[in-house]
Amino acid sequence: MHSGSSGLILGVSRLIFSHESRYQRIEIFENEFFGRVLVLDGCVMTAERDEFIYHEMLVHPGMLVHPNPQEILIIGGGDGGALREALRYPVRKAVLVEIDQAVVDAAKAYLPILSSGFSDPRALVLYEDGFEFLRRTPPESYDLIIVDSPDPVGSAKTLFTKEFYREAFKVLSKPGVLAIQAESPIHHLETIKEIKKHLLSVFGEVHFYTSPMPTYPGGWWCYALCLKGIDGFEPKREPPDGLRYYNHRIHRAAFALPEFLRKDLM
Amino acid sequence: MHSGSSGLILGVSRLIFSHESRYQRIEIFENEFFGRVLVLDGCVMTAERDEFIYHEMLVHPGMLVHPNPQEILIIGGGDGGALREALRYPVRKAVLVEIDQAVVDAAKAYLPILSSGFSDPRALVLYEDGFEFLRRTPPESYDLIIVDSPDPVGSAKTLFTKEFYREAFKVLSKPGVLAIQAESPIHHLETIKEIKKHLLSVFGEVHFYTSPMPTYPGGWWCYALCLKGIDGFEPKREPPDGLRYYNHRIHRAAFALPEFLRKDLM
Repeated sequence: MHSGSSGLILGVSRLIFSHESRYQRIEIFENEFFGRVLVLDGCVMTAERDEFIYHEMLVHPGMLVHPNPQEILIIGGGDGGALREALRYPVRKAVLVEIDQAVVDAAKAYLPILSSGFSDPRALVLYEDGFEFLRRTPPESYDLIIVDSPDPVGSAKTLFTKEFYREAFKVLSKPGVLAIQAESPIHHLETIKEIKKHLLSVFGEVHFYTSPMPTYPGGWWCYALCLKGIDGFEPKREPPDGLRYYNHRIHRAAFALPEFLRKDLM
Repeated sequence: MHSGSSGLILGVSRLIFSHESRYQRIEIFENEFFGRVLVLDGCVMTAERDEFIYHEMLVHPGMLVHPNPQEILIIGGGDGGALREALRYPVRKAVLVEIDQAVVDAAKAYLPILSSGFSDPRALVLYEDGFEFLRRTPPESYDLIIVDSPDPVGSAKTLFTKEFYREAFKVLSKPGVLAIQAESPIHHLETIKEIKKHLLSVFGEVHFYTSPMPTYPGGWWCYALCLKGIDGFEPKREPPDGLRYYNHRIHRAAFALPEFLRKDLM
């Protein structure tokens, strides 16, 4: 359910995986239209048919706004989709910090479209809390930090706090970019305003952008780019080959906010 | 349902209206999150909370691409939302041709947010088939034609044919604009390609654009502007006051198509 009275209904043609991990209930099922769907604690995290939109829009704007991203950190994203997109670039290293190893294991076993990046020699996967990881990381260690978190409830709540953004800022090199998923403009506008307030208390430049996202609440999703030593959100280079959603016109268009959002987020 | 295996689920906190008209089953209910919802033959046509996105994006790009739209024709749109948006401009006349009077009557009675335009002295409502109306209309009678139709099934099927577009072209003045709703990029891509083929057999210039639309299939909707004697989709004037979705940056951004659509639609 996306609110107390609305939600997405997905038929299950086959239940593929179901497991109660230390952190959450993990389910993967097959839907005739959307393909394999990963569900954590009852919330759709990713579906094969439309995941490319979310993962491309979470990763490529940040990657291409940075002049030369080499050291990449992904917090969350245990399905591997964000990692796959980051590894399209000639980066030196991509570290993925996921709290729940069971999600990575399930993705490797049952979501090959998403999890292909885990076998890349540049990828390093660590199983721990993202906030704790940032705390123990030396300053200016990463060029780009991508936060691919679930909604701000339960253990993911800390990933939306001022303290978390402060640690992220510290860990970013200069120039550096923090790219986060920032919830649904139609279902979570109050949360988005809260996120903005926290981000602006740490970063001088924050730009919100959106994309459609069929299996997420409202079918429409918000993201934010937070810049350290970079001006504006213009892409600096050509995108890699093989993308299905992102292109330069889409990049610029995504930052155009509707009137009702613009008043709150610009 | 949006496909055989997926759909939107909306709780009914109160059924407000239910009627089997000559053409379809008409229902209006109250949903806690989306407000009043109009459903025709089981498909969500419009919901109070997000209807502004669809109606603004169906009407304003066409209105503002035209140098001076005075005579407006709306085909379908019995809920009144497109009419309300068109009447924000100092137009001479807005004719709405809806096949089912029962829809207009229900909107007038139970959807005041949408149906306010029906009492405007510039509005004229006719109850007949849109295709038949075009056939009997003299050439070059309208500056802007807006097609606010349901999906291409049943009686609405003719509103997606080459013959219909040919009649629309004939009825348009020069300069003139035809603006249509063109289904969901995620659920109806084959239909959209078909629509494009038909439009291009009649109009020299056709531009597809999209917007999020939470209560429609895929949460994402496609539209097309078809131009007669107008070059390009740049807005010619400032939009009227009071809009909640549309602005000039959104106008230009809406025409940026994702890679997988661009290949098919540009």
